[in-house]
Amino acid sequence: MSVPVIEAVEPVVDGGRFPAKATVGDSVAVRADVFAHGHELVRAFVRYRPSGARRWTLVPMVPLGNDRFEAEVVPEQIGLLEVEVLGEVDRLAGWRRDAARRAQVRFEPTDPAAGAALVQQAASKIPALRPVATALRKAKDAAGIEAALEALSEHDEEIASRPPDGDPVIFAQELAVQRELAACSAWYECFPRSTSPDPSRPGTLKDLEAHLSYVADLGFDVCYLPPVHPIGTTARKGPNNSSEAVPGDVGSPWAIGSPAGGHDAIAPELGTIKDFDKVVARARRLGLEIALDLAFQASPDHPWVHDHPEWFAHRSDGSIACAENPPKRYEDVYPLDFDTADGEGLYAALLGVVRFWMSHGVRVFRVDNPHTKPFAFWEWLIGEVHALDPGVIFLAEAFTRPKVMHRLAKLGFDQSYTYFTWRDNKWELADYLEELAHGPGSTYFRGNLWPNTPDILARSLQHGGRPAFVARLVLAACGSSNYGIYGPMFELLVDAPVAPGSEEYLNSEKYEVHHHDLSRTPLEEVLRRVNTARRLHPALRRNDSLRFHPVANDFLLCWSKHDDQTGDTVLCLVNLDPDWPQSGFVELDLAALGIKEGSFVVRDLLDDSTYVWNGSRNFVLLDPARNNAHVLVVERSLEAMT
Amino acid sequence: MSVPVIEAVEPVVDGGRFPAKATVGDSVAVRADVFAHGHELVRAFVRYRPSGARRWTLVPMVPLGNDRFEAEVVPEQIGLLEVEVLGEVDRLAGWRRDAARRAQVRFEPTDPAAGAALVQQAASKIPALRPVATALRKAKDAAGIEAALEALSEHDEEIASRPPDGDPVIFAQELAVQRELAACSAWYECFPRSTSPDPSRPGTLKDLEAHLSYVADLGFDVCYLPPVHPIGTTARKGPNNSSEAVPGDVGSPWAIGSPAGGHDAIAPELGTIKDFDKVVARARRLGLEIALDLAFQASPDHPWVHDHPEWFAHRSDGSIACAENPPKRYEDVYPLDFDTADGEGLYAALLGVVRFWMSHGVRVFRVDNPHTKPFAFWEWLIGEVHALDPGVIFLAEAFTRPKVMHRLAKLGFDQSYTYFTWRDNKWELADYLEELAHGPGSTYFRGNLWPNTPDILARSLQHGGRPAFVARLVLAACGSSNYGIYGPMFELLVDAPVAPGSEEYLNSEKYEVHHHDLSRTPLEEVLRRVNTARRLHPALRRNDSLRFHPVANDFLLCWSKHDDQTGDTVLCLVNLDPDWPQSGFVELDLAALGIKEGSFVVRDLLDDSTYVWNGSRNFVLLDPARNNAHVLVVERSLEAMT
Repeated sequence: MSVPVIEAVEPVVDGGRFPAKATVGDSVAVRADVFAHGHELVRAFVRYRPSGARRWTLVPMVPLGNDRFEAEVVPEQIGLLEVEVLGEVDRLAGWRRDAARRAQVRFEPTDPAAGAALVQQAASKIPALRPVATALRKAKDAAGIEAALEALSEHDEEIASRPPDGDPVIFAQELAVQRELAACSAWYECFPRSTSPDPSRPGTLKDLEAHLSYVADLGFDVCYLPPVHPIGTTARKGPNNSSEAVPGDVGSPWAIGSPAGGHDAIAPELGTIKDFDKVVARARRLGLEIALDLAFQASPDHPWVHDHPEWFAHRSDGSIACAENPPKRYEDVYPLDFDTADGEGLYAALLGVVRFWMSHGVRVFRVDNPHTKPFAFWEWLIGEVHALDPGVIFLAEAFTRPKVMHRLAKLGFDQSYTYFTWRDNKWELADYLEELAHGPGSTYFRGNLWPNTPDILARSLQHGGRPAFVARLVLAACGSSNYGIYGPMFELLVDAPVAPGSEEYLNSEKYEVHHHDLSRTPLEEVLRRVNTARRLHPALRRNDSLRFHPVANDFLLCWSKHDDQTGDTVLCLVNLDPDWPQSGFVELDLAALGIKEGSFVVRDLLDDSTYVWNGSRNFVLLDPARNNAHVLVVERSLEAMT
Repeated sequence: MSVPVIEAVEPVVDGGRFPAKATVGDSVAVRADVFAHGHELVRAFVRYRPSGARRWTLVPMVPLGNDRFEAEVVPEQIGLLEVEVLGEVDRLAGWRRDAARRAQVRFEPTDPAAGAALVQQAASKIPALRPVATALRKAKDAAGIEAALEALSEHDEEIASRPPDGDPVIFAQELAVQRELAACSAWYECFPRSTSPDPSRPGTLKDLEAHLSYVADLGFDVCYLPPVHPIGTTARKGPNNSSEAVPGDVGSPWAIGSPAGGHDAIAPELGTIKDFDKVVARARRLGLEIALDLAFQASPDHPWVHDHPEWFAHRSDGSIACAENPPKRYEDVYPLDFDTADGEGLYAALLGVVRFWMSHGVRVFRVDNPHTKPFAFWEWLIGEVHALDPGVIFLAEAFTRPKVMHRLAKLGFDQSYTYFTWRDNKWELADYLEELAHGPGSTYFRGNLWPNTPDILARSLQHGGRPAFVARLVLAACGSSNYGIYGPMFELLVDAPVAPGSEEYLNSEKYEVHHHDLSRTPLEEVLRRVNTARRLHPALRRNDSLRFHPVANDFLLCWSKHDDQTGDTVLCLVNLDPDWPQSGFVELDLAALGIKEGSFVVRDLLDDSTYVWNGSRNFVLLDPARNNAHVLVVERSLEAMT
């Protein structure tokens, strides 16, 4: 019996080795080449079900031409979704085509018996076809067959949508479905110990709890905390990463572990696990999620060093080597040895850490340096966690080589830090945002764009003042559906490096407690407006429609995002020159944006100013003295101006 | 233990489901991403062996940057070649790097014991390293370690090329290696019954035998014969495909089978199997190969119809339906029913046909309409044949949809007919030749370009006379390493269709015997020169270097081919206007062609004229009154002019 082949299925990652990614409620276009030899016609279907479920949802695929078929899959729940492409030769359609063609050219009629058998088969699903089968079986001449063909055509719709007739050929794969937060999120990172309103003492989780309303008010979705665990004292680092700490120095939160506990404990100076639970609860009430840091390493004082020395690599003299990347040295940190003979124990302990914080309501984790641990470990860990709660989101802090970053995304990380922080020029930015939105990795790699982090005071922020911060904010928040800032360094425009040419902050919060006056920060309004725009405009919540538009000025970058379902269109413009006003003509592809020729109104979501634009070519001027960017929503008619 | 991952291996077809193609002696660049987590260094290898052989050839891969590695594989024999990419963490290199970096930044020295163990391991393959291992084991201080590192560096080359230390990660696949003829061939198709020198009688195999020297003299590699089997008389077709044959009409050679025999018989009017053997022997002496036509169908008089009625589909009235594609009807042909209950018997019979002709020295088959038979059948048949003789070459006459043509190529057809016959405009031709040379199918799909066939008198040939024939010849023969013509219709410039707008020849040789005067044909010299150029110029024997160059004239097409190993460069120019001279400036990318700035000489292989060109921009003029094309070999210096 003829069987079709199924080829070139998409989305597929590495031939099905890894699942492509999707989010609840957002449709995924599944496409495949389905064809058989000769003149056989084929039918193609997609069917899907949550992994482990019994019932499939079956969707007929629509032919796109050139033997390609497509169907939309709309995942309804998080977790793995089994997705199969099915193909079978449509013998009934082939018989109908042949019969009709023969009638048309006045050949003697087709043998009706074969057709009758096929219609009979279809009638098992469409009872109304039974009389047609009988009529065909009894047809004696061309007129009889033609009458049956006509009777058949009255059931075209049911016939086309009937399930497969026999055992179709199957191409099976999976989609990893996450909640929407994985695909669209605004992150705010801050150090709990720097949230004290009282300059005479460090902040605590109680202070953080109070501080959360500030973060929520700015419109963020996630508040990410550096490690909140006890900090070791052995080889503790002093201010500016000095290797000699003095009493009173607070140490790096990434030097995890002291006699007070390890990865499942709260640093005593921050408070208690109960305080933490209150933070999580308060965040939830504010519509925020708390993200914790998974830094799988230990200070020399970590209980694991004492209880499980086998989890660390020892030198021949019996000592444990600290982490290093010559000439850098992290004396306050021991790396874990993933090649330990007790891999089982180590893996279980690390999974235990994640489960512990999950049990305290944490569903978002930022993973510190995942690229320095084995790929197989992460694939296992994320698999185990997702088996418990597929809605747990992992952000990979993998600032490393592109292939390694992509592998981590493939094996399960929901989001990843990116190279955005080092993309400054117009062409670099356009290239990179294009790659993130449309490159081959876009089916599994969700970039999260950070203008700054505690480790990176980007060069682009060091000399441009507020205009540079606004530009980088709009690039990140409107160029990508996922972005984050490290605050309040960001909204306070902090731009002093520890040394000229360095990307480290001067007096970094990694080693010191800060006190900030946040009563009125220079970026407060812009941040609030950008995050509000992201909440209200579906166009900004996705990347697949990202499109750059030419501007004949090397400092001006213009792009659009569009949401098909709502028709929402947002046009973004950024001036990359923090010092001087820049102007030029933007050339829009109106048809692609769904904008009719003629005049239309754009309203800047950053300051509510409106402009009447006309046709595809429009003048723009961005002045660093005001906002150095536009986030323009396209309103279709002049009436919308009011 | 850390293991690397292997990704993005190329060439790979459909994730390894099908082998990519290669030819004996022509190197294949195997590339892969090989990397491990963190700062681990990796080593990558390719190893290969003929399928079933015991010993591997191991080649270290060279890093290309960005975690990509490459190695050249040079297949030495035809047949399947097992090719594996191997990756392992290079712990010795990692230790050496760390030790050197620590020394450089004056950290206390690395633990030498770990290094000693790794050197000891390498010493099992490089005995000269044994004293270094001992020295390291005994090293007490930085100086001792540094001395050992230096001693190691004296063995860098051996260390780099040593086989894997342990059990590497393996990505396995296969290459299908063919003889060079699969990748570079010039075909000449002719009807044996039209080779009679005596106008009073049809040609025979004896006449064909004599005629072969004509074909060989023109420089062709393959002489392809339409079916040579007994032709049925039932429903025989008359001239111009008329459905009423009269006595004396010879019938279509594709209506195979009569009481005189089927697919393994010679038509009595052509001669005997002994005559056929002489044809093959004579061809071999002339450096030609005989290609037969595999048309798996039967005339109503074929012995199979009587002996194996179950191999044909029957209507309910017991009759067998002839082949048809309404409104076309092939009353003289019954299709085989590949869904027959006796699939085993039918498959064996068809394989038997191929084996029979193989036993008579045929190693090249042109397969008629392979796309109307199941893919699985061809995959099986070609596999069986290649198991007996991997040097048998199959050309797919699949004029059908692109995905179907590609599937046939993937599953084993060595060459395929193409859409070239219908590509007329400059952009169409450039696009299509680019796709064939560099498209994703280029690892498995070898296009064979035919300006005409007995079924297709291309539109481009019907109104342009000799200039059009020359243009189409140069496009096919120099645009592709595989091409063919249907002669002597081609060299006689036959251009009359059976009806206006038709692509069928008037008085087609498919239904009549022709007599040709080949004493001096209008294309004889051009054909001989083009084929000689193809024999002598390695650049023309491959497609992977094909490159188009801009000419600001829509009738002028310019491309180059280049052979890296010999430095051979050929520039081709074709005037697509058969009526008027066309001129313009060619813009060459000299650097890409390996041509130095300044003057250079190009010699036209079609007429030995020479031109001095200067720099990248040169004037060309092609006149239909002379040859309508240039095939220019680039000679590097003015001295070469003489």
